[in-house]
Amino acid sequence: MSFRTIEWRDDKVVMIDQTRLPGEEVYCEYADYKSVAEAIRGMVIRGAPAIGVAAAMGVALGAREIIADTYESFFRQMENVCEVMARTRPTAVNLFWAIERMKRVASEHHDRPLDELREILKAEAIRIEQEDLELCKAIGRHGSALIPEGATVLTHCNAGGLATAGYGTALGVIRAAHEAGKKIQVFADETRPWLQGARLTAWELMKDGIPVTLISDNMAGFFMKRGEITCCVVGADRIAANGDTANKIGTYSVAVLARENNIPFYVAAPTTTLDLSLENGDQIPIEERHSREVTHLNGFPVAPEGIRVRNPAFDVTPARYISAIITEQGVVSGDYATGLRGLVAP
Amino acid sequence: MSFRTIEWRDDKVVMIDQTRLPGEEVYCEYADYKSVAEAIRGMVIRGAPAIGVAAAMGVALGAREIIADTYESFFRQMENVCEVMARTRPTAVNLFWAIERMKRVASEHHDRPLDELREILKAEAIRIEQEDLELCKAIGRHGSALIPEGATVLTHCNAGGLATAGYGTALGVIRAAHEAGKKIQVFADETRPWLQGARLTAWELMKDGIPVTLISDNMAGFFMKRGEITCCVVGADRIAANGDTANKIGTYSVAVLARENNIPFYVAAPTTTLDLSLENGDQIPIEERHSREVTHLNGFPVAPEGIRVRNPAFDVTPARYISAIITEQGVVSGDYATGLRGLVAP
Repeated sequence: MSFRTIEWRDDKVVMIDQTRLPGEEVYCEYADYKSVAEAIRGMVIRGAPAIGVAAAMGVALGAREIIADTYESFFRQMENVCEVMARTRPTAVNLFWAIERMKRVASEHHDRPLDELREILKAEAIRIEQEDLELCKAIGRHGSALIPEGATVLTHCNAGGLATAGYGTALGVIRAAHEAGKKIQVFADETRPWLQGARLTAWELMKDGIPVTLISDNMAGFFMKRGEITCCVVGADRIAANGDTANKIGTYSVAVLARENNIPFYVAAPTTTLDLSLENGDQIPIEERHSREVTHLNGFPVAPEGIRVRNPAFDVTPARYISAIITEQGVVSGDYATGLRGLVAP
Repeated sequence: MSFRTIEWRDDKVVMIDQTRLPGEEVYCEYADYKSVAEAIRGMVIRGAPAIGVAAAMGVALGAREIIADTYESFFRQMENVCEVMARTRPTAVNLFWAIERMKRVASEHHDRPLDELREILKAEAIRIEQEDLELCKAIGRHGSALIPEGATVLTHCNAGGLATAGYGTALGVIRAAHEAGKKIQVFADETRPWLQGARLTAWELMKDGIPVTLISDNMAGFFMKRGEITCCVVGADRIAANGDTANKIGTYSVAVLARENNIPFYVAAPTTTLDLSLENGDQIPIEERHSREVTHLNGFPVAPEGIRVRNPAFDVTPARYISAIITEQGVVSGDYATGLRGLVAP
């Protein structure tokens, strides 16, 4: 891949600014945890796995900012840092997973000198990033088998290199099939209101030379009905114990349309996206974002002033619409409750 | 209604410029048929019934431009005018219906002096406009009964006053329910790529004081699944003999999602939108428009340069997803082949 989504460099966090793609490829440096939190909230970085990495690096940055004499004081302040990171976006569980992992590492090394602990936390954040890349490649290996030669694969939003430490989940499956020499092409939903498909998925697939066609979200059904779509692959922000999957708004519609047209619908996500504490998807919190995302484009209004807007950023696709969930541990289908639990069994 | 979609004034055709709404309420004058054709193609005016009215007025303008000594010469040139009008947009059948009606009127009055014939054609175009307004009000009366007190009605695109001579088809049903004192509210899909919902439906409902909430197209399923939508009402561009309905791209997806969530899905259209010459919807030509509608917003790119795009402007909703078709003659459901034919039986 010819870009880097996020990295730790010279004790700063460097991210490609996804709000400015595809027009400008700009890398921003963040030297403190609050600005990382702001970057997550403002979607400089987005995508569940990438948010997890950013949160971990934010906590590691915060650990460097803490002034403390004792571990207890350090940890109390670190919990505040974690609280700020946790409040950025509510739906993607990887955020909370990464924060918990950072806290656990701190607890496990409570007897170390604080400067050493800060280094341990930094190393852990970098490890989370590196692991995520490996998870994506494993997802790609498992998922590639599901993509037939000559397939046209529909994807929604961006579950690509930009949504992860690199390679991607849904786009990881597509990349792996492409790298395996299969002649495939992608239909990318533009994904209103934030246009992740038009701005990010189109951009990164073009960069990699994978044939991609951009459509607006409401065209997906048209092409499915005409028999032009072989299968759908999307990412996930949180998967409940029964397989119900929260993902970018519009995913549910794609799944229903796929079912109606007998087209396989796959979810690709690392096991860090599982939230087995939730019995089903009804319990997943759904973020509603600012109306301006819907009413304005590039700062220009596209709707009457004062119009009432709803802007849920995610929806939940019930497990019954999902043909299979592709994880780094393998592919689960059918009885998700048993299958998903099996993946993370000790 | 506090605006006028199209009218014949001082031997010019005056239209509200729908490409500039909601930011600017500008009325454009057209003095010749070619500029009317260009206005239809460029979507200064759109919506199947409004396109029909514009085409008729375009033909009437063209008739005034024709230089001829004989009826035969006049009619030959008028056929050329009709050909130019017919080539503007392929899907909405009202365009062809209006052109045929103008030709028939000319034939029926072939023995009149040409100046008198020109006046007859002008009067016919104005009559088509006035009739369309009456059709919409009748659609509203019939459809209003289907909208329950307290309903939240989802609509897609703009099948409103702006899509007709006034009052609207789908929005005519909504207006009639509102005027009948029912407390209803509307959810308007923004309707990418041209944003008819955000720009036009939101604008005209706000003008009329009917509560409206704007969502992006891919959110419709989310609100249906949450039980927040009572029913869906959309317009139509062409209805085949079996009830299959061509309408703005995305309508099919709304219909499938409505069926999946046990929500009634209604089509509202005048009988001028019927095309009983087509057995089913597979035979309806679907316009594909320029990629720039998808890649640019207000002239600003939202996708990488050179991205491949598909941009079908319409889709076909199979009749089995349609709970009822609301026309000015009454409401048809169940056996559409028989019911629709019955509506237009002599």
